[in-house]
Amino acid sequence: MEHQYFVLKGCLRTYLIDSSGKEHTMQFAVENWWVSDYLAYYKGGESIFFVECLEDCELMRVRKEDLEGMFLSLSITETYFRLQLENAFAAFQKRILSSLNLTAKERYSQFIQIYPDIEQRVKNYQIASYLGITPESLSRLRKNRIASDES
Amino acid sequence: MEHQYFVLKGCLRTYLIDSSGKEHTMQFAVENWWVSDYLAYYKGGESIFFVECLEDCELMRVRKEDLEGMFLSLSITETYFRLQLENAFAAFQKRILSSLNLTAKERYSQFIQIYPDIEQRVKNYQIASYLGITPESLSRLRKNRIASDES
Repeated sequence: MEHQYFVLKGCLRTYLIDSSGKEHTMQFAVENWWVSDYLAYYKGGESIFFVECLEDCELMRVRKEDLEGMFLSLSITETYFRLQLENAFAAFQKRILSSLNLTAKERYSQFIQIYPDIEQRVKNYQIASYLGITPESLSRLRKNRIASDES
Repeated sequence: MEHQYFVLKGCLRTYLIDSSGKEHTMQFAVENWWVSDYLAYYKGGESIFFVECLEDCELMRVRKEDLEGMFLSLSITETYFRLQLENAFAAFQKRILSSLNLTAKERYSQFIQIYPDIEQRVKNYQIASYLGITPESLSRLRKNRIASDES
């Protein structure tokens, strides 16, 4: 995979389908987020993900080779991308930890913090497949959350 | 957290203890690996992890401020750390995906690939807490693996 994509407008998700036909969402991407299959992008090879536009999207596509050339000619761009990567890496560490030690309810709360306005833009089963729970479990979490907000 | 550590010799792990007293292993680190709490290191704040030396260790400690200074004065060092970070980021993506779509057996196989010689160096419950399974499940996986290797 040779490209990363920067979202100017719209909402996308990357996901894979396992051998039993089940979808697993790796990432949602909205305005000002980058999206790619980072294993394929950084290490070479084909992407294992499907990329789905959930709305009409405007994307900026950047080729790895061009980016590397830009890093060489203008070192401030390398610093910018390194800092972006540091943030993304810290976020991935957080997600790994949350899969190990948080309940589904806590993971859902964390998801809403990371993606505050996304619930109206994506389908329930897509959020559930990001959290690693069933759509029914997600519905229950939402009802409980609304009930506790109203009380 | 201001430092990253480079392992010259030995074996460490980072882990946290949840509210129920259960340990969750974030990372093992052996020779030539870096280890830190990357959320605390990159975004600032206190680390939530314990760092445990599982053997006598020799570490090189690098302070974030010194590293940033070196990036400014010698841009090749920034490139080196960016490439390291890209590899680590791709590995984190792989771990997130495996927690979503792999069975415990598949996650254990992947673990052995990532850490080929670590099984003699760390305790079973520590590996289990990295994989998010019980020590009993890990024992079963090992027995099945040995049985299938022998057949």
